[in-house]
Amino acid sequence: MDDPTLDPADWDGLRTSAHDLLDRALDRLQSARDGRVWTPMPEAMKSGLKAGLPGKGIAHDALADRLSDLMPYGVGNTHPRFFGWVHGAGNPGGVMAEIAAAAMNANLGGRDHGAIHVERQVLDWCCAMMGFPADSGGLIVSGTSMATIIALKAARDRRLDFTSRSKGVGGARLTGYASTQAHSCVARAFDMLGLGSDALRPVPCLGDFTMDLCALRQMIREDAEAGLTPFAVIGTAGSVNVGAIDDLAGLADIAATKDLWFHVDGAFGATAILSDPVRSRLRGMERADSLAFDFHKWLHVNYDAGCVLIRDRDAHLRAFSERPDYLAASTRGLAAGNPWPVEFGPELSRGFRALKIWAHLLEHGTEKLGAAITRNVEQARYLASRIGETPGLELLAPATLNIVCFRYAPVGAGDLDALNDAIVIELQESGVAAPSTTRIEGRLAIRVNLTNHRTTRPDLDLLLSEILRIGGWLSSN
Amino acid sequence: MDDPTLDPADWDGLRTSAHDLLDRALDRLQSARDGRVWTPMPEAMKSGLKAGLPGKGIAHDALADRLSDLMPYGVGNTHPRFFGWVHGAGNPGGVMAEIAAAAMNANLGGRDHGAIHVERQVLDWCCAMMGFPADSGGLIVSGTSMATIIALKAARDRRLDFTSRSKGVGGARLTGYASTQAHSCVARAFDMLGLGSDALRPVPCLGDFTMDLCALRQMIREDAEAGLTPFAVIGTAGSVNVGAIDDLAGLADIAATKDLWFHVDGAFGATAILSDPVRSRLRGMERADSLAFDFHKWLHVNYDAGCVLIRDRDAHLRAFSERPDYLAASTRGLAAGNPWPVEFGPELSRGFRALKIWAHLLEHGTEKLGAAITRNVEQARYLASRIGETPGLELLAPATLNIVCFRYAPVGAGDLDALNDAIVIELQESGVAAPSTTRIEGRLAIRVNLTNHRTTRPDLDLLLSEILRIGGWLSSN
Repeated sequence: MDDPTLDPADWDGLRTSAHDLLDRALDRLQSARDGRVWTPMPEAMKSGLKAGLPGKGIAHDALADRLSDLMPYGVGNTHPRFFGWVHGAGNPGGVMAEIAAAAMNANLGGRDHGAIHVERQVLDWCCAMMGFPADSGGLIVSGTSMATIIALKAARDRRLDFTSRSKGVGGARLTGYASTQAHSCVARAFDMLGLGSDALRPVPCLGDFTMDLCALRQMIREDAEAGLTPFAVIGTAGSVNVGAIDDLAGLADIAATKDLWFHVDGAFGATAILSDPVRSRLRGMERADSLAFDFHKWLHVNYDAGCVLIRDRDAHLRAFSERPDYLAASTRGLAAGNPWPVEFGPELSRGFRALKIWAHLLEHGTEKLGAAITRNVEQARYLASRIGETPGLELLAPATLNIVCFRYAPVGAGDLDALNDAIVIELQESGVAAPSTTRIEGRLAIRVNLTNHRTTRPDLDLLLSEILRIGGWLSSN
Repeated sequence: MDDPTLDPADWDGLRTSAHDLLDRALDRLQSARDGRVWTPMPEAMKSGLKAGLPGKGIAHDALADRLSDLMPYGVGNTHPRFFGWVHGAGNPGGVMAEIAAAAMNANLGGRDHGAIHVERQVLDWCCAMMGFPADSGGLIVSGTSMATIIALKAARDRRLDFTSRSKGVGGARLTGYASTQAHSCVARAFDMLGLGSDALRPVPCLGDFTMDLCALRQMIREDAEAGLTPFAVIGTAGSVNVGAIDDLAGLADIAATKDLWFHVDGAFGATAILSDPVRSRLRGMERADSLAFDFHKWLHVNYDAGCVLIRDRDAHLRAFSERPDYLAASTRGLAAGNPWPVEFGPELSRGFRALKIWAHLLEHGTEKLGAAITRNVEQARYLASRIGETPGLELLAPATLNIVCFRYAPVGAGDLDALNDAIVIELQESGVAAPSTTRIEGRLAIRVNLTNHRTTRPDLDLLLSEILRIGGWLSSN
């Protein structure tokens, strides 16, 4: 082959196909409110995907068709009646940042280039938004799962005088504390870091699903007396099941008294600091040693985009930094600009996800982003109130933030768990709405999560009327 | 605010700005061969970036300008004379995949939707490409750093009967083995996983910078006799300093005999399996228990995109799977399609990076990708041969793959380390070429890495003539 470069032989062809695909992508986004929420990929298309490793390439117009054909088969989170799990609804303007990022093809592991400066600016904004000191450590990551691992590694290593980096955790019997409602990514981080998920103690909750601080104090005392080493307490700002916010100021006090690292899992809840009515409920978050949160949830940056902030920047750096010969630092040239981002996390190759965050904050500004959050909180209150006044529906937890857990429970119905599970599947498969399920005190709940800037009250009305219709139909068959 | 949706009020405005930006992005890529390799971001632009957290948004045309203004200030890896570290040169067609991904905004943590099926197909292709069984475990990740952590976690947990997940690594004295030339991400994984980087034993290398297998056998024996538990050996397919490929078949034999997990770090080297002349040198890689490699390096998929393959899919799953109530599996509806990707890695939120890999393989096909690799290998041989015949230049390591380490060493020169460091900085700052540096047996080397589909032989000729010119000028001043 004479010219094995991967640049197109026909630039005009690429240009035409890319513009054509861009129009189809924008058409898709412009009609995000229409049609079905979730459309399973047809079997014929699944089999069409299956093919041997391609030896020869295809033309750009054919590639545009292949890509465009996939677009209708998303998870549904761009639709106003997607209420499942905690998904952001995305941002049409985000396509612009992706175009620029693709052209730059930057690796943000390190070195001195424009993308690094953009990420630093985004981190400055994160500190400002969350009330962290401007000289905190931080890193843009894929999401809260990774942010939590990074934060708790810094906590682990600082407690062990950073000898754990070379010597391992060995016989150190570190223990951490999070509520029974904490997200599984916290226990997973304990597992990843070699501490074991049992070292994360599940602290009972009060009736409002927030951590019982009296129980926490007692558990810390008992563990210390048993010769263990309590090292971290993890507060939840927006629990995954019901959206509960722990008493973060109370946790900050306990952490200060007991010399614990105070981490906050604010995956979606932390960003509610932009909402005027919610802000005060997050008081204490700004005192955390570390904070993990996502941009792709309640701020609607396209997947994936999260952040970790660590107050003790030196500990953050000491938990990750190493510079072998082939990554040597310099004060001049391309290898300048120390420290490099790779010194704040486990990844050496890092795409330019900071760009879409930067562009998103520029495009919308915090006021509009906060207003969208406020609207979701008001919608949750509205939905809970409608459930409360509707016979046959039962609220299973207080809807204090953006999540409403309830069930269809008409008098005389049989197995409510099976019935409500069937209702949710029917809702999803009919394409009308997509809540998910969870269990609240053992009972299966229809779980409606509102992190969706496209949702309106009529969407919620339709959801309830469909639940009653499907529930009635399933009960009578 | 009446309508706090984040969708644009003016769709036509977004459309115009996005098309405009797309043209500017393609213009930039079409001229990737021209001009300077690396242009530091001007101080005025750095200060322009600094601004308070924006309260109000900006219009899409202004956003397009802001994004477009950043484009010239990449790290330089899209230029044919970027030779630093190991960076891929990117792919103009990749912008199409990013447009489609932005429109879908998929979260690939789980659930049953189109993106999940695309990732599965990509993993099937990875198995086929690397000679792994089709029923291997696998995951698309940000890069080899993350892939290595995932692979070694599976190795750690399988050796400890998966009790480590809940109980931690405690007193288990696991040891692993990699050559002194292994990448730092391997030791970092040991650190992350609580084993400590000291538990990774550095095995001496032979003169060709590959692992000394006799030394390896002896170290394993000594550690076992000392009561430690050897559990993993890590082979390198393409070392970061010089591109050396360990005797992978020999390592596979030792791993089988000693009951060790055999991991291969194939960050860039593994993909050279697509190159006809290189393929046979990777023999044994297909016998690995796990393999980590990148698509954004020698295959030029845009950043970031890597992969981990794990032969024992059950171990992979058992090392990561957990399904709390709010992520309960279903056989129908949106929560179907088990297992979910989140059960194969630490991340619950996962963007659709599989799409750009899928599109890239479709666009180019493996033959063309392999030919581009072959060309880089031939260029490395050419460059080494020119260095060998040029007085004043000294080759510091055999150039057996795609990396050439050498220095300017004229008779009578003084501090060669300082001189060569200065040459590299001058090359970078002049914008003519961008190699990086490393140390080979203590000596500072100019390190030319060829994972660049745009490089031509005249680019290499220019590099050498500039080194001689700058070196001569620096020596005489």
